[in-house]
Amino acid sequence: MIEILDSTLRDGAQSENVSFSAADKKAVIKTLCDFGIPFIEAGNPGSNPKDSEIFSDFSEYDSREYDSSENYSSEYYSSENYSSEYYSPHYIDNLVAFGATRRKAMRCEDDKLFMSLIECPAKNVSIFGKASVFHATEILGASLEENLEMIEESISFAVRSGKVVFFDAEHFFDGYKDNPEYAKTVIFAAAKAGASRIVLCDTNGGSFPSEVYDITKSIKDALYDYPDVIIGIHCHNDCGFADASALFAVMAGASHVQGTFTGIGERCGNTNLSTIIPSIMLKLKLQCIPEENLPKLTETARKIAEIANIRLPDGMPFVGKSAFAHKGGMHADGVRKNPISFEHINPASVGNERNILLSEVAGRAAVIAKVSRIFTGKDIDKNSPEISDIITTVKEREADGYQYEGADASFEILVRERFGIMPEYFTLDYYKILGERTGEAEPLTSAIIKARVNDKTKLRVHEGDGPVNAIDKALRKALSQFYPVLETVHLSDYKVRIIDSKNATAANVRVLIESTDGVNVWTTVGASTNIINASVSALIDSIKYKLLLEEKTGG
Amino acid sequence: MIEILDSTLRDGAQSENVSFSAADKKAVIKTLCDFGIPFIEAGNPGSNPKDSEIFSDFSEYDSREYDSSENYSSEYYSSENYSSEYYSPHYIDNLVAFGATRRKAMRCEDDKLFMSLIECPAKNVSIFGKASVFHATEILGASLEENLEMIEESISFAVRSGKVVFFDAEHFFDGYKDNPEYAKTVIFAAAKAGASRIVLCDTNGGSFPSEVYDITKSIKDALYDYPDVIIGIHCHNDCGFADASALFAVMAGASHVQGTFTGIGERCGNTNLSTIIPSIMLKLKLQCIPEENLPKLTETARKIAEIANIRLPDGMPFVGKSAFAHKGGMHADGVRKNPISFEHINPASVGNERNILLSEVAGRAAVIAKVSRIFTGKDIDKNSPEISDIITTVKEREADGYQYEGADASFEILVRERFGIMPEYFTLDYYKILGERTGEAEPLTSAIIKARVNDKTKLRVHEGDGPVNAIDKALRKALSQFYPVLETVHLSDYKVRIIDSKNATAANVRVLIESTDGVNVWTTVGASTNIINASVSALIDSIKYKLLLEEKTGG
Repeated sequence: MIEILDSTLRDGAQSENVSFSAADKKAVIKTLCDFGIPFIEAGNPGSNPKDSEIFSDFSEYDSREYDSSENYSSEYYSSENYSSEYYSPHYIDNLVAFGATRRKAMRCEDDKLFMSLIECPAKNVSIFGKASVFHATEILGASLEENLEMIEESISFAVRSGKVVFFDAEHFFDGYKDNPEYAKTVIFAAAKAGASRIVLCDTNGGSFPSEVYDITKSIKDALYDYPDVIIGIHCHNDCGFADASALFAVMAGASHVQGTFTGIGERCGNTNLSTIIPSIMLKLKLQCIPEENLPKLTETARKIAEIANIRLPDGMPFVGKSAFAHKGGMHADGVRKNPISFEHINPASVGNERNILLSEVAGRAAVIAKVSRIFTGKDIDKNSPEISDIITTVKEREADGYQYEGADASFEILVRERFGIMPEYFTLDYYKILGERTGEAEPLTSAIIKARVNDKTKLRVHEGDGPVNAIDKALRKALSQFYPVLETVHLSDYKVRIIDSKNATAANVRVLIESTDGVNVWTTVGASTNIINASVSALIDSIKYKLLLEEKTGG
Repeated sequence: MIEILDSTLRDGAQSENVSFSAADKKAVIKTLCDFGIPFIEAGNPGSNPKDSEIFSDFSEYDSREYDSSENYSSEYYSSENYSSEYYSPHYIDNLVAFGATRRKAMRCEDDKLFMSLIECPAKNVSIFGKASVFHATEILGASLEENLEMIEESISFAVRSGKVVFFDAEHFFDGYKDNPEYAKTVIFAAAKAGASRIVLCDTNGGSFPSEVYDITKSIKDALYDYPDVIIGIHCHNDCGFADASALFAVMAGASHVQGTFTGIGERCGNTNLSTIIPSIMLKLKLQCIPEENLPKLTETARKIAEIANIRLPDGMPFVGKSAFAHKGGMHADGVRKNPISFEHINPASVGNERNILLSEVAGRAAVIAKVSRIFTGKDIDKNSPEISDIITTVKEREADGYQYEGADASFEILVRERFGIMPEYFTLDYYKILGERTGEAEPLTSAIIKARVNDKTKLRVHEGDGPVNAIDKALRKALSQFYPVLETVHLSDYKVRIIDSKNATAANVRVLIESTDGVNVWTTVGASTNIINASVSALIDSIKYKLLLEEKTGG
C-alpha cells in the first residue's frame, strides 16, 4: 500500500500564476477526497491566516454524508485492497496542516507561528526542518545542535498535543550528498521524537532518480529500529525527473508519495500524481487509491486544472487530450489492428480515450474508425452513402485548410449533419463588425449579430477585445436566453494559422478554438480565406457542440 | 561525447495540432544547427512528398557561409571539447531522412518508398524496423526470418549506396521484455549489415528508466564485437519518464540521444532535449553540444516553440518562464542569501533568468547581450540610461504579453528607438474596419487608414481577407508611393496566441508576424487585449523593419 499526499493547495499554490480562493480550496479538497486521496496538505496556518480558515471550515460542517457530489460513494472505500484506515467520514481527517519547526532560541509554546499549527483543528501536521548542514548554518543561522533540537522538540511537542506528525526533511538529498552523517542524524532525531512519516525532500529538484534510489534505500536500511515509521518522498521537477524519482523512491522502500495532482508547484512543479498513480497501480501493481476510482483519473485531473485555472498540456501522460492520440498512418493502422501495438495501457483504465487523428496520412480507415466511435454500439455500414459523403467532405474541407485531427467536436458535428441527426440549434443570419483606433487612443471594436432559434430572431450588439470576441459575446447574449447552459462555457484557447504561407494574401486561414465548461474540453475548427469567417465557423461549432453535449447527458 | 538527434520535424510533427510549413522547417533546421545539434531528422521522403522538398532545397543552396544569421559563428565549433566531425559547412550533412525498411516480399530496388529514402540527397538515413516478435508477426504480418531479412537487406543496400545508416529498433524495449533473444538477433542483424548507430526505441513509452538501464546495458555488453557501433536511445513520455529513461540509457552506455527540442511528439511526446542536454552537460559532465552554446538553450527552445506555434509550459525544466521563479517568501529569501539554497544550477548557464522582484541581474545581462549583438563592433555602455530604459520597457511589455525571443526585428526597433537612431518612417493616424456577412454569402471586410509620411497624409481604403489583411493592404498602398520597395514585401506567416488562457475574454493576445521580401525573413510581435491592435503593432514593426533593412544595405 502506497499512501498519497496531495499538496496542490500548499506547494501547488506556490507556482507562478496560481492562487486559490476559499471556494476553490474546498472544491479541490472534495474532488481529491472523492477520488480517494488519503492526505491533502491544505495550507500553512501560521504564515497565512486564510489558510487557517479552511481547516476551521471543515471542522465545523465536514461530514461527507452531507456531500452532494455524485462522485462520492462509500463503496469505493470498501474495496478489499484499500486500507480502511484512510477512509473517514470527516474531511478534516484527510487534511494536513503545514508549517515550520519552532524558531531558534524559542520554546515551542512561545512561538506563535508554531503554535498556530498546533492549535489548528487538523489532526495531521507536516512539520518541516532542515536536513542539510549548509541550510541549517548558512540560511537558518543555527548551530547544528540547535537545528536538531528545533526538530526534536517541535515533533515531540506536536505528538504530545495529539497530532500525527509528518516530518518533511527539507533539502534532504542535497544535505545527504554534502554530509550524509548529519542528514541521517536529522532523520533519527525525527524518528526518535515520534514522527509517523519521515518525508525525504529533493527541495531544489536537482537530484537524479538513481541518487534518490540509493539514498532512500540507505535510510530505509538505517531505520530498522523504527519499523513503524513510514518513509515518504517529495520531489521537484527542475530536471524533469520528479515522477521518475518518486517511483524510484517507492522501489527503494518509500511508501508515502507527495506531489500535486496536475504537477503544479514551485518553479518547475512537483511530482505529478496523475502520472505517478497509474504507474504505481498498473505497472508496479501496488495499491494506492481505491481501484474502482482509477477510471476517474482523467476527469479528476481536468477538474483540478479547471479549479486552479491552469491549462493541462495536451501531452500530459495518461490524462492529456493527446495522451492516446495517433496521427502517423502506420501508428493509426497498427492501433486498428491491435491497440496494444502502440498503447502501453488501455486508455479507458484511466478514463481517457483513444483518439485517431485525421491527417493526409491517415485516410478512409481512420475516418471510419472515428465515425464508429461516435456511434458506439451501433453497426456502421462502411459503404453507406453517408460515409462516402463524409469522406468526400473531409477531403474537400482539408483542401480548404480545415484540419479535423485536433478538432473532434467539429468532426462530430459534420458526421451528425451528414447522418441527418444534428439538431438545428440556431442560425446566425448575419454579423457586422466595426472597429477603429485613432493614434494611441483605446481601440474600439463592436459587433452586431442577428440569430434565429426556431422562429424567434434576436438582434444583439456587443463590444469586445477584437471582432471575434465581440461576435462571441453578442451571439452568446442572444442565445443564452434560449440556452442558459451556455453561460458556463468559455473559450480557453484560440489559435490561428495561415495554411499556405507562400502567398499570404490569398492564403487560407485556419482557426482552432478550444472551449470548456469546467468539466469537458472540446476543440472546433474553421477555415476560410477570411479570418473572421474562419473564427465564426469554429465559434458556431463550439456552441453547437456544448448544446449537443447537454442533450447527450440529458442535462 | 554524447551525440544528439533532434526529431522535431519528424516525430514532433506527429503531435496533435503541430504542422510545419516549408518555411517553418527551414527555420527549425537553421535554429538547431546554430545551436550545435549535429543531427536533425527532417522528414520521411517516402511517405510525404512535401518532406522530400526540404532535403532537395538544402542540397541546392545550403552552404552555411551564405547564412546571414547573426547567431552563427564558426568559432562555436572550434571548441576543443566539441568533436569537429559534427560540424559541416553544409546543412545537408546535418540532416537525416527517415523511412521504413523495404516492404516484405519485395527487393529493395523495386520498393518505391524505400528507394525514395535512398535517392534523397541526405547522406544520413534513419531506417526503422521491428525489434519485436509481436510487431513483426501480428502487425507487419511477416515471418521472423523475413523481418530479419528486411532489416539486413535494407541496411546493406543503403550502406552500399553510400548512406550513413541509423537503425531505429522500433518497439525494442517491449520486444526485449517479451522475447530478449529475438530482440537481440535484430540488433545483431543491423550491426552486421553496417548500421553506424543502433537506436533502441521505447516506442510506446511504457518502460521504466530502470528497465531501460538494464536492457541498454545488456545490449552494450552484447555488442562487444562491434566497438564502432554507437548505441542510441529514443523514448516516449507516456509514463512521464522519457527524460529519465534517456539519461539512464546514457548511464548504461548509450551515446546517441534522440528527442525533440521542446519535447513534442506523438501522444505524450518525446525526450525533451532542452531538459536532457543541460543534465548531460552540467550534471553528468559529458559533452554534447558546444559548451559556449548552452547559454542559448532558453532562447533556442522558445524560438522553436514559436515556430511550431505551441505554448511552452511555464514550468518546463531549465527553459520555462517559471523554471527559476521564487514565490515562497522563504525561498525568495533563501535565494537572496545564497542562490544555491533553492537553485540546482545557475539560471544564466542555460540562458534563463531568476525571477524574483528584487533581482534584475540576469535579465539585465540577457538584454545587454542582445543589444550588443545589434551594435556589433561598437562599445555599449552597460550603465547608460538607454540600457536601463530598454530593460524597463522590455519588462513592462513582457508583462503585457510581448515576447521578444521569437521577434528579433521588433526588439531591434525598440532598441533603436531608445537610442534615438530609429527613423520615423511613417505614422498611422487611425484605422477603421468594417466587416459583415449575411447567411452564407461572401464575407466582406474593408479598412480605412490614414497614414502620414513627413507632412504628407494619405487616406486609403482597401478590402481584405479579414480586418488585419485589409489594414495591411490599405497601409501598404498608402506607403508604397513613398517607399516603392514595400511592394516586394509580403507576410509569410501570422500566428496568434492567447497568453493567459484562464479568462479568455480579458486575456492578452500575442501576434507574431513573419515577413519576407524574398531574401530576408524577419519576425515582429505585438500584444494587446485587442487582437486587431496587437496585429497592427506587429504589422507596423514589420514595415518599419523592411525600411530599416533597406537603409542598412544602402538599397
